[in-house]
Amino acid sequence: MFDHDEDLERFVEKIEEMIRNKQYAQLRDLFLPLEPADIAEALEEAGEEYMPLLYRLLPKEIAAEVFVELESDSQEMLINGFSNNELKEVLDELYLDDAVDIVEEMPASVVIRILDRATPEMRKSINEILKYPEDSAGSIMNMEFLSLKKDMTVADAFKRIRRIGGDMETINILYVTDPRRKLLGVLSVRDLLLADEDDLIEEIMDPNLVWATTMDDKEDVAQALNKYGFLALPIVDLESRLVGIVTVDDAMDVIEEATTEDFEKMAAMLPSDKPYLRTSVISTWKARLPWLMILMLSATFTGMILNHYENALAACLILNAYIPMLSGTGGNSGTQASVAVIRALSLDEVDFSDLLAVLWKELQVSFLCGACLASANFVKMLLIDRMLLGNAAVTLPVCLVVCLTIFFVVVFAKCVGCSLPLLAEKIGLDPAVMASPFISTIVDATSLLIYFQLASALLGI
Amino acid sequence: MFDHDEDLERFVEKIEEMIRNKQYAQLRDLFLPLEPADIAEALEEAGEEYMPLLYRLLPKEIAAEVFVELESDSQEMLINGFSNNELKEVLDELYLDDAVDIVEEMPASVVIRILDRATPEMRKSINEILKYPEDSAGSIMNMEFLSLKKDMTVADAFKRIRRIGGDMETINILYVTDPRRKLLGVLSVRDLLLADEDDLIEEIMDPNLVWATTMDDKEDVAQALNKYGFLALPIVDLESRLVGIVTVDDAMDVIEEATTEDFEKMAAMLPSDKPYLRTSVISTWKARLPWLMILMLSATFTGMILNHYENALAACLILNAYIPMLSGTGGNSGTQASVAVIRALSLDEVDFSDLLAVLWKELQVSFLCGACLASANFVKMLLIDRMLLGNAAVTLPVCLVVCLTIFFVVVFAKCVGCSLPLLAEKIGLDPAVMASPFISTIVDATSLLIYFQLASALLGI
Repeated sequence: MFDHDEDLERFVEKIEEMIRNKQYAQLRDLFLPLEPADIAEALEEAGEEYMPLLYRLLPKEIAAEVFVELESDSQEMLINGFSNNELKEVLDELYLDDAVDIVEEMPASVVIRILDRATPEMRKSINEILKYPEDSAGSIMNMEFLSLKKDMTVADAFKRIRRIGGDMETINILYVTDPRRKLLGVLSVRDLLLADEDDLIEEIMDPNLVWATTMDDKEDVAQALNKYGFLALPIVDLESRLVGIVTVDDAMDVIEEATTEDFEKMAAMLPSDKPYLRTSVISTWKARLPWLMILMLSATFTGMILNHYENALAACLILNAYIPMLSGTGGNSGTQASVAVIRALSLDEVDFSDLLAVLWKELQVSFLCGACLASANFVKMLLIDRMLLGNAAVTLPVCLVVCLTIFFVVVFAKCVGCSLPLLAEKIGLDPAVMASPFISTIVDATSLLIYFQLASALLGI
Repeated sequence: MFDHDEDLERFVEKIEEMIRNKQYAQLRDLFLPLEPADIAEALEEAGEEYMPLLYRLLPKEIAAEVFVELESDSQEMLINGFSNNELKEVLDELYLDDAVDIVEEMPASVVIRILDRATPEMRKSINEILKYPEDSAGSIMNMEFLSLKKDMTVADAFKRIRRIGGDMETINILYVTDPRRKLLGVLSVRDLLLADEDDLIEEIMDPNLVWATTMDDKEDVAQALNKYGFLALPIVDLESRLVGIVTVDDAMDVIEEATTEDFEKMAAMLPSDKPYLRTSVISTWKARLPWLMILMLSATFTGMILNHYENALAACLILNAYIPMLSGTGGNSGTQASVAVIRALSLDEVDFSDLLAVLWKELQVSFLCGACLASANFVKMLLIDRMLLGNAAVTLPVCLVVCLTIFFVVVFAKCVGCSLPLLAEKIGLDPAVMASPFISTIVDATSLLIYFQLASALLGI
């Protein structure tokens, strides 16, 4: 594997030199020992100019595996350059779920060409999978799997694996179905190997199995694979017939994609589906502007509050100096609680029914944090702001107002931060949006209100 | 699987009722069809009072699998209640890597008891793995794996699998080694099944393989498994001898743990290793206070800047009303860039050598975002603040100062936000710390400086 990007760059330089010297046979040998994912990386790095040439140097079996690993831009570019025969060769080597992934990313004209060249069965299967909603288990399942019958012997099963196992994505996990394709049990190839040749499948299979339906959320299915440590999960249709499997590598991709989306949403960005450096400036701008705009405009409220208390501020301008600290501390406290709950939600550790338990926990934590921060700030204001920096306006009542505000703001921020994601989940919104930027905006306005209420009560302004 | 927490609660109520009625045989039957992970969840939900009783009802083979899935608190509680024989029974059923995971979490007294009861080989292996650094591939690898010799026939290999394959965590992927345990090749059990009985292993193995060393970072190893779609990755020692394997389920756990840590660090929390609701209030407080304190105290600088410009502010108090909006917009813009880069770093999409490309991209995006936000705010200030709310202090020069500040702050925030994580990675710090809270604090102070510089230049205050 390429450990560092520098290795990759040096490798690509070598490739380009070989192309210039027309050393095609050596180039091919250079690729052979590499994994498909590494070859794809080298092709991407070599760029559009060399990619078609390099791709055509690859042996047919490897070519399809490399094709799957390329970015969709590159796949589209290659397909547009393929002859009909070349396209067919790639399609014939693809597993169904990979073919669907590719079709989903291509523009209509390319999709039509792909479906035109696919075998009738593949076309039928692709169409079937495309019917499932984008986030469903059905959309990521593979319909090519190996199923056994309960009255087969172990020897029969091995015969079946030898006959058709070469075309399947996995044979490590095998499902047993009845004549109407209902799931009866599961066994691993290890169970087969450790059994006697004439044992019946029925006797060695595990009749207790976990499955998901085609309409289940693909993230839930991926989390289930992770939780149970399975290599595959069977997917049944609404009539409980086995129609596909989701394998662990697909699950890992789903989790990685979902995590990236969570990060993006939590940082007030719309999700993008391409790697950072491959996303165009315009797409990045489009993903980032909407939330920046909404949050900027909603800061109008904080502005209105400050305007409202203009006279109070003019009377005691020192209060103004602590506003950024208060809103920062409030925002950070709220962010901590919201991110902790958002992560717990996506790992299925909590749900809405835990609202009270979560609130109670955050209330206790916020009392502790609030008290510590308020005390530290009290000492800091007296020692640094008043004594060291000699600011006479920092009187004891001012300290009291600031420190009490810290306490209340931390408590408020943590309670809002932990409940909003749970509420969002309950009403079907994405909890990840209830993160730092959103929480900070709410806490900003509230902390000003608390601040000025305390100030007018204690300082009489 | 338990789809919802309500199912689990109802299940646990049923269990508790059966315990009260002493229906132990039925209880045992209730557990039998469940997956170990689900039984563990039910045991956790039933709590300390019932757990030992319920655990003892489980058949021996299932008991060990359930034990692995329990939280470490529960494991410790159960071990403390085990007789020496019970402890030995559990240990005998554990895979080595699971045993190591458990040992790592236990207090010294429990560790001594475990090592005392383990078989001599297991004790030796546990000790060996514990020697590897916490984040290394060595610390998560499993030393029980099945290796073949290149001059074996396929029939020999099957014999070997049937003899010792039952004790291995996986037989799906098999490694071929020479007499000095150097890695020669890899093959899957499918390759074996599709080959002829008298083919030599040497002929069907793939001599090109990807491996990692015991000292490689465990996250890199997990990402490699994901990237290549492997079910296992061989781990070699510093003399290139095969010493263990890391399987895909371990990789998924490593990735999940690393992602949670990233979320926590990005929200200014110290990482915790327990699920949200199981972390005590004190531990949560300890994880959250340090960064809150540091960030609160570093807001002293923003306070000093505001104090410094006290007179300017007093002269034009309307400027004050826009400070929260400016710092919010700056913070959010910086957060977007930093989170995008942090995620790209952890997916290995960028590294320090891409600094210029990243900066150039963010510069363009920030010009676009900055211009849009500044224009929108200009219109908003004139239409809403001046005309609708009738604030006469919102003059054209004031609008200009605020909107120019927005533009510069967005550009500055995005540049800082994208470069700090890359710099952190370069000097060996964790980039995830360079997220929202940290960036916001830096941007806060800078945006005030830009604001007041522009104000004194354009408003002459």
